[in-house]
Amino acid sequence: MEDLEISGSRTRARSFMDSARSGTFLFSLVISYTDTCRVPGITVAGARPEMIQYTPPADAEYLHYGYCKSIDSVPTTPDGKPTPGLLTKVALESSSIPHLTINAGSRVAPRLPFIETGLPPGGNIAEGPAMTDRDVSHAVDYGRIVGRSLASLAGCLVIGECVPGGTTTALAVLRGLGADARVSSSIPENPVDLKDRVASAALSRLGPDHPYSVVARVGDPMIPFVAGMLSAASTVSRVLLAGGTQMAAVLALASRIGFDEENTAVGTTSYVAGDKSANFGDLVRGVADVPAMSVDPGMAGSGLPGLRAFSEGFAKEGVGAGGCIISAMLKSGLTRTRLLRLAEDEYRRLAKSGGRPAG
Amino acid sequence: MEDLEISGSRTRARSFMDSARSGTFLFSLVISYTDTCRVPGITVAGARPEMIQYTPPADAEYLHYGYCKSIDSVPTTPDGKPTPGLLTKVALESSSIPHLTINAGSRVAPRLPFIETGLPPGGNIAEGPAMTDRDVSHAVDYGRIVGRSLASLAGCLVIGECVPGGTTTALAVLRGLGADARVSSSIPENPVDLKDRVASAALSRLGPDHPYSVVARVGDPMIPFVAGMLSAASTVSRVLLAGGTQMAAVLALASRIGFDEENTAVGTTSYVAGDKSANFGDLVRGVADVPAMSVDPGMAGSGLPGLRAFSEGFAKEGVGAGGCIISAMLKSGLTRTRLLRLAEDEYRRLAKSGGRPAG
Repeated sequence: MEDLEISGSRTRARSFMDSARSGTFLFSLVISYTDTCRVPGITVAGARPEMIQYTPPADAEYLHYGYCKSIDSVPTTPDGKPTPGLLTKVALESSSIPHLTINAGSRVAPRLPFIETGLPPGGNIAEGPAMTDRDVSHAVDYGRIVGRSLASLAGCLVIGECVPGGTTTALAVLRGLGADARVSSSIPENPVDLKDRVASAALSRLGPDHPYSVVARVGDPMIPFVAGMLSAASTVSRVLLAGGTQMAAVLALASRIGFDEENTAVGTTSYVAGDKSANFGDLVRGVADVPAMSVDPGMAGSGLPGLRAFSEGFAKEGVGAGGCIISAMLKSGLTRTRLLRLAEDEYRRLAKSGGRPAG
Repeated sequence: MEDLEISGSRTRARSFMDSARSGTFLFSLVISYTDTCRVPGITVAGARPEMIQYTPPADAEYLHYGYCKSIDSVPTTPDGKPTPGLLTKVALESSSIPHLTINAGSRVAPRLPFIETGLPPGGNIAEGPAMTDRDVSHAVDYGRIVGRSLASLAGCLVIGECVPGGTTTALAVLRGLGADARVSSSIPENPVDLKDRVASAALSRLGPDHPYSVVARVGDPMIPFVAGMLSAASTVSRVLLAGGTQMAAVLALASRIGFDEENTAVGTTSYVAGDKSANFGDLVRGVADVPAMSVDPGMAGSGLPGLRAFSEGFAKEGVGAGGCIISAMLKSGLTRTRLLRLAEDEYRRLAKSGGRPAG
């Protein structure tokens, strides 16, 4: 497809796309939390700092209901730019791809039916461990169970995440597991130095450890949970990790616990893949032999500033946006032109309704 | 199939089976709770009265892990007869039918990933209302969401339940909604008079009410949740309600809120359908025009008393056993002879391991 850039084996990417295209898709949104998001300046995933914890459940509610129940409007940046979940939503709906929400440590439970895992939220890695080794083990075990169940229900299981502050924990996990990592951000001026400082402080507490201990000290609950999902699901069906550098951290851990590379790909937006402050393609290549696909959602062409902002480096990815767009292109031939029209319609609907239920 | 008895339209049953057979199956176990189970003598679903609340999560754990985590062994009657989940488990595994657990008001959460609905456990209808009208509305709404999601993932959604004491709440709901009902039991000497007294006491508090109010006063959380699931799922795919008289109560409510009868069937064991103290076929016919199928699991032919007990009226149904056996017969041609062998192997495995993990 002309809109896709591929990094890694093109043969493997082609084979992944051909087999996925002929089957069914299921999108699972894994919501989680790390108290690292409270480090000032580390994320813009919330209108105000005290609202950040509501962003994961609110994104899940928005995908499902078209409005949020935990907060009054859809999640935005402090200056009002909308959640990338907008792209996820129109992509999934354009192609009738079903989705489920999984709570893997969100501080706030979403107001809809969801898969519960019993995982606690992650701690602030600038100050102490994210969780216990036992929590990591629980996350991987439960991830395996959920991954196997969901993979048996679809030809291609697409996994996205919403973890505000999660690129910093991903950076720390990647470095802790030995990868040469720079990570992307929801902010155009990526606070690279700040992330480095937080990750380095967390890493300074590491000894020569088991991978689970690395994740327990410097990660977040999403990373081991999704690694467990991938590990089991990739033995049953295709798995598309829908995300940027956070999914690279998942791959780094999954490489240690085992997964089927032949059935796995990463899908993200060109806004992440092209982020010069990160190194997405190299990063994925460095941790696993799986193709990384990136799609240009085409929002640079929008007359609406809130949508154009995605192409200008705000919330470049998240809520599985890139992977869901790729899935919709594979499943039903969604084009960039149609995506743009659907996204503009949805943006106007939100602007009109204030993100609240109609009536 | 020679092992199936059909009540209601044979043409519709044939059409249901033909379309289900050609597609995929997904089993969902809805676990719930009613404090009505604490009325002495009303259920044997637990080794001791204080253990009854652990039966729903333990059944879910047993299906998943092959042993239980919430209690030390698989659920049994006070004299050690095993859960009908044993039949469910071997039927699902014989045919690689995937399953998910849904918590719709269980007092104890299962120790595995499950779909959470936020519903509270139901009250004892001998003493007061089961829940609020608002809880019923929540149950139906969330049931609709889950039903629509799961139905989009399978050609035939099979729904089973585990609600100790649930035949008494089913009786009260059926009568409250105007059906002429007698219900079945997990005990050979069905405590009909006791159930009648409890149901009548609950019904005496009813005025001429909205169906939701009837269920709120005399039902349990499973009934409105599964009615909601059926309502949405039957518009998308086939739905097999796997259970006996409790599923008749679900149908009675679903008839009031709307569902697609063409896509719906009930499946149970001949031990329920042949129960002279109940009136299963008539009951289903009285509330909805859907076929009721019953299968003889053939346990009368076992040399193992614990399995033969099913055919002698102990735990005649539950955990979706009958519907799962029917699904396995449709999907992969499971025969009664093979089912008996698999059940005996599993029974011996449990006897040897004490229902605890190996090793």
